[in-house]
Amino acid sequence: MKAAILGICPDATIVDVTHGVDKFNVRAGAFMLASAAPYFPTGSVHVAVVDPCVGTPRRPIIIETEKAFFVGPDNGLLILATESAGLKQMRHIESRRLMLPHVSSTFHGRDIFAPAAAHLANGVSLEEFGSQITEVVKPEFTKVTCTKDALVGEVLHVDDFGNIITNIQAKDISLFRENVIQVKVASHAPYQMKLTMTYADAKLQEPLAIIGSHNYLEIALNQGNAAAKFGAKAGDKITLSRT
Amino acid sequence: MKAAILGICPDATIVDVTHGVDKFNVRAGAFMLASAAPYFPTGSVHVAVVDPCVGTPRRPIIIETEKAFFVGPDNGLLILATESAGLKQMRHIESRRLMLPHVSSTFHGRDIFAPAAAHLANGVSLEEFGSQITEVVKPEFTKVTCTKDALVGEVLHVDDFGNIITNIQAKDISLFRENVIQVKVASHAPYQMKLTMTYADAKLQEPLAIIGSHNYLEIALNQGNAAAKFGAKAGDKITLSRT
Amino acid sequence: MKAAILGICPDATIVDVTHGVDKFNVRAGAFMLASAAPYFPTGSVHVAVVDPCVGTPRRPIIIETEKAFFVGPDNGLLILATESAGLKQMRHIESRRLMLPHVSSTFHGRDIFAPAAAHLANGVSLEEFGSQITEVVKPEFTKVTCTKDALVGEVLHVDDFGNIITNIQAKDISLFRENVIQVKVASHAPYQMKLTMTYADAKLQEPLAIIGSHNYLEIALNQGNAAAKFGAKAGDKITLSRT
Repeated sequence: MKAAILGICPDATIVDVTHGVDKFNVRAGAFMLASAAPYFPTGSVHVAVVDPCVGTPRRPIIIETEKAFFVGPDNGLLILATESAGLKQMRHIESRRLMLPHVSSTFHGRDIFAPAAAHLANGVSLEEFGSQITEVVKPEFTKVTCTKDALVGEVLHVDDFGNIITNIQAKDISLFRENVIQVKVASHAPYQMKLTMTYADAKLQEPLAIIGSHNYLEIALNQGNAAAKFGAKAGDKITLSRT
Repeated sequence: MKAAILGICPDATIVDVTHGVDKFNVRAGAFMLASAAPYFPTGSVHVAVVDPCVGTPRRPIIIETEKAFFVGPDNGLLILATESAGLKQMRHIESRRLMLPHVSSTFHGRDIFAPAAAHLANGVSLEEFGSQITEVVKPEFTKVTCTKDALVGEVLHVDDFGNIITNIQAKDISLFRENVIQVKVASHAPYQMKLTMTYADAKLQEPLAIIGSHNYLEIALNQGNAAAKFGAKAGDKITLSRT
Repeated sequence: MKAAILGICPDATIVDVTHGVDKFNVRAGAFMLASAAPYFPTGSVHVAVVDPCVGTPRRPIIIETEKAFFVGPDNGLLILATESAGLKQMRHIESRRLMLPHVSSTFHGRDIFAPAAAHLANGVSLEEFGSQITEVVKPEFTKVTCTKDALVGEVLHVDDFGNIITNIQAKDISLFRENVIQVKVASHAPYQMKLTMTYADAKLQEPLAIIGSHNYLEIALNQGNAAAKFGAKAGDKITLSRT
């Protein structure tokens, strides 16, 4: 992919964010992209590939936000990074002229996505890539639903420390004025914990809900492993409610 | 190695292709280099190190092809990438002046290969590195033999999906006009399968022979694991014959 | 971290030395930094983060040597790389203006260290970061003690080949004029071995003491696994004495 980029845009500055996403794990890829993208300079081009359906007719797409371009498969991978970032337009990548000459059926990262990213870095305008689109695939993990007094999201990722990172963002929890909430993980009994801004607010091994360094709500144990305590894994439903 | 490169050629654009080759696995390294190199811009300098014999008198070499330079140990690592790429010349790296001042006995990547690559990127001409050579080491995995109606190669690599990637290339199979061939993996019974251009040509779980995205013949199962079915591993002999 | 760097210093050349240090292993990180740093061009800025105490009041620091700048936590991580490199000055990073606008409690790599490195690359002078300091944290692994005829250090790292890399450097062993010394690993019986400059000086499977490619004294077995033979692991005491 880097070779394909440099062949088209020799002056590109290429940054590896991660090669550590598990195979086919679109949710984890979406989370990592959303964690990293806000820190890149305005005008950056992000290309992301976690693509279990390569070879099927799932579309290659470009999403332009107020600050950046995102290139990848239309399977939800780009949604967490783009949905709160000021959507400008979305395009289906159709122009063969902006792909590598031979497009394989198994490696669109190299043959379609990397070339598209390089052409964007060269200043090629979005309309040249293909037709505008208005709907993209939004898997469950991109959705937070809000009922009268509960917020339902899901576990995006469990990090190396056992912190449970949810898809619930700071803006979502503004409805809670309490500083103690109930958190239900999957089918476990609800657990009452502080909604706090700093780890120091909780006693040792006490669970807390906090907006973490990734800007998502995390369930953590002060110096402990929350995922182990709650038996949580990626994809589990998380319900927040008033006590 | 990157530090050594930047000390000699501060403007070099350095690209990591992979750090995921198993220790001492020259065959896998050769395959990955051959997969990636064709996509890099003309004039690129490739430096590759999988070097079980560092410290012995195996030679450090440079191979120049029509499109690129390849730097590494003379143990076969560079051969798959260079043999079909239009050989121009090969050199033994001998000039101490183009190495780091202190050459360790265990880390020639840093002390010899990276500096040579950086000097090539700076435009140093090949004759300055050392004497021209005409023979290089060619391990079994670089050889495909052709009898009256059979082609014998070997398994280069089994990928994460269980696809069996062989060292047989598109040009080698032009002798087969049939679209059904017999494939024998190691000492297993020969298996009859389609020689096809697309995965969609085979039924679910049906084996097929296809030129993959790496430009090598792959034995794959449509949505299945061919390596598990055939019990194949890197180094196994592969025999293709007419049905 | 790379995004934070490029946001401040868009022309930075960023090199990944390693992402393979085990979580919280300050000793291994210190060793890898000390191994790589001497090979980088003069004026390089090194940023290193192995930071088990992020969130506590441990200080973020900059160490300037004659050749380079080192940015990271004050926990010993920077000491092996800087202690023999001609210390110029050390600073506590205090200026909020030179950090990201929001400093999280868990990811100082992104919010403090990477921005500081980028500002240094931009030419910001050290006094702008914070007050000068004269004492930094020096864990056990940074210390080699010398008695009348023994030298006591510790195991920094056991590499993939089973070589035992100690924190003892070439300058430390100049007191030994013998070419056979006694080496005691942890509480094992002392073992007599050659102090040599090349692996070829020892017979097959014979232990030897050698200044390795990292510039630290290694205990190695010619074509064998020294760590297995001596049961050595990182942190073990190493005592060298006359026979």
